Amino acid sequence: MANPTAAMLVIGDEILSGRTRDSNMHRLACELTKHGIDLTEVRVVADDRAAIIAGVRALAATYDHVFTSGGIGPTHDDITAEAIAAAFETPIGIRADARAILEAHYDSTGQELNAARLRMARIPDGATLIDNPISAAPGFILGNVHVMAGVPAIFEAMLASVLPALTGGAPILSQSIRIDRGEGEIAAPLSELADDFSDLSIGSYPFMRDGVHGTHVVIRGTDAARIDAAMTRLAEDLSGGPA
Amino acid sequence: MANPTAAMLVIGDEILSGRTRDSNMHRLACELTKHGIDLTEVRVVADDRAAIIAGVRALAATYDHVFTSGGIGPTHDDITAEAIAAAFETPIGIRADARAILEAHYDSTGQELNAARLRMARIPDGATLIDNPISAAPGFILGNVHVMAGVPAIFEAMLASVLPALTGGAPILSQSIRIDRGEGEIAAPLSELADDFSDLSIGSYPFMRDGVHGTHVVIRGTDAARIDAAMTRLAEDLSGGPA
Repeated sequence: MANPTAAMLVIGDEILSGRTRDSNMHRLACELTKHGIDLTEVRVVADDRAAIIAGVRALAATYDHVFTSGGIGPTHDDITAEAIAAAFETPIGIRADARAILEAHYDSTGQELNAARLRMARIPDGATLIDNPISAAPGFILGNVHVMAGVPAIFEAMLASVLPALTGGAPILSQSIRIDRGEGEIAAPLSELADDFSDLSIGSYPFMRDGVHGTHVVIRGTDAARIDAAMTRLAEDLSGGPA
Repeated sequence: MANPTAAMLVIGDEILSGRTRDSNMHRLACELTKHGIDLTEVRVVADDRAAIIAGVRALAATYDHVFTSGGIGPTHDDITAEAIAAAFETPIGIRADARAILEAHYDSTGQELNAARLRMARIPDGATLIDNPISAAPGFILGNVHVMAGVPAIFEAMLASVLPALTGGAPILSQSIRIDRGEGEIAAPLSELADDFSDLSIGSYPFMRDGVHGTHVVIRGTDAARIDAAMTRLAEDLSGGPA
C-alpha cells in the first residue's frame, strides 16, 4: 500500500524577501521520511490572505496531510488563523481553552494578556489545539491541516506532538554510495537499474570536490532486501559486471 | 509602478525526502530583492513529469518571471527539460549549439560525450541558452521560464548571467531595529504604524535569546525618506511618544 502523502505551506514575507532562511521545510521533510509519510509538495507564500487561502485549499484537497508554518503570532502581519478559517468557511473566535492557556502562561511570567496577545486564542470552530511547550500560544488542527508556528524551535515541538497521532506507512529506508565518477559516466547503468528496480527510488546527486566530479547514488524504498539487491547489482555494473 | 513579480519551482526528490537541504531558494530570494523583483511564490515538487508540468504552467501564467532549479543533468531522473517543453507544447531535441558546447567541454577534459551526456544538449525549440561556466551543460530560457541547474554553484552562476537582462523595479530598501520586548507588547503600536504607512511593508520577527523574548522589526519599501519617517515614529511610539 502506498504511503500517506503530505504537503507543506510555508507562510511568510521574510522567507520570500531573503531576510530569513527557512529551516522548517527541511526539518519536516526529514521527520516525515522517518515516519513513512511522503512529503510531495511544498509551497511558500507571502503573508497574504488570498495566497494563503488558495494555497491551503489546493494542498488540502490533494494530499492526505498538510502542515503550515508561520503567521500565528500576535502582530498585524499574523493572519494565518483567519485565512485558514476562511479557506474552510469556518467561523473563528477566541476560544476559552486557548485563552486559559495564554492566561496561565502570562500570569506565570508576570506579563499582561493584552488585546494583541489575546488574538493568539482565536481558533477556528471545530479545531483541535496543538500544544506549544515553549511560548504557550497553541497551534491547531482543522480537517487535515496542521497549523504551526514559524519559529523553528516551536515548529519542531509542535511537529513532535502531532506526528505520533498520524498513521505512517512503512518507513523509507535508504542506502547511498559515493562514486568517484561523473554522473554522465554512470548514467546508462543507473538508468537500466532504475528500470529493473522500478519499486525503488534511485537518485543520483553530482558533487565536485577538489576539481574532481563525483556522484552520490541514493537508493530508497521500503524493502531492505530489494535495496541490498540493487546496491549489489550497481557495484557489479560499475566494476564491469560479476566475476 | 509595482515591481515585477517572480516565482520559483524547485525540482527534486532529494529536497522533499530531506536528503538535501535546498539553498537555491534563499539565494534567489536575496538576489531578486536586490534587483527590485518581488519573489511571490515558491513551489517544491518531485522529479515527476506531471508535477513539473502543472507547477510551471501555473507559475508561468501568474507571475512575470519563473526560475526553476534542478533536474537538468544526464541521468534518468533528470526530466526537467522534457517536462518544460511539454508544459509549453514545444518540440525538444538535441541542438547544434548546445552539442558544440558539450563537445568542446568534454574534449578539453579528455572525457567522452556519451549518450547520457548528450541528453544535456536537448533544448526546447525557440529557447535561449543560459551559460554554465562551471560544467558547460547549459540552462535555457523558454518564454518567461528560466531553467537552471540544482547544484548551488551552477545555479548561482546561471542566475548571475540572466539577472542583468531582466528589468527590475525600484530596489527594495530596508531598515531593521531590535526591540527587547516580546511581539505581544508592541503589537498595538506596530499595527497602527502599518495602517499609517500602508505604502511600506512592516514585519515583526520574534526571537528568544537567553530566555528573553525580543522582536526584530523590519520596515521595507522603495522610498528611503518614508522608511526613515516610519522608523522615527516607531522609536517615538515605543519610548512613550515625542517629547
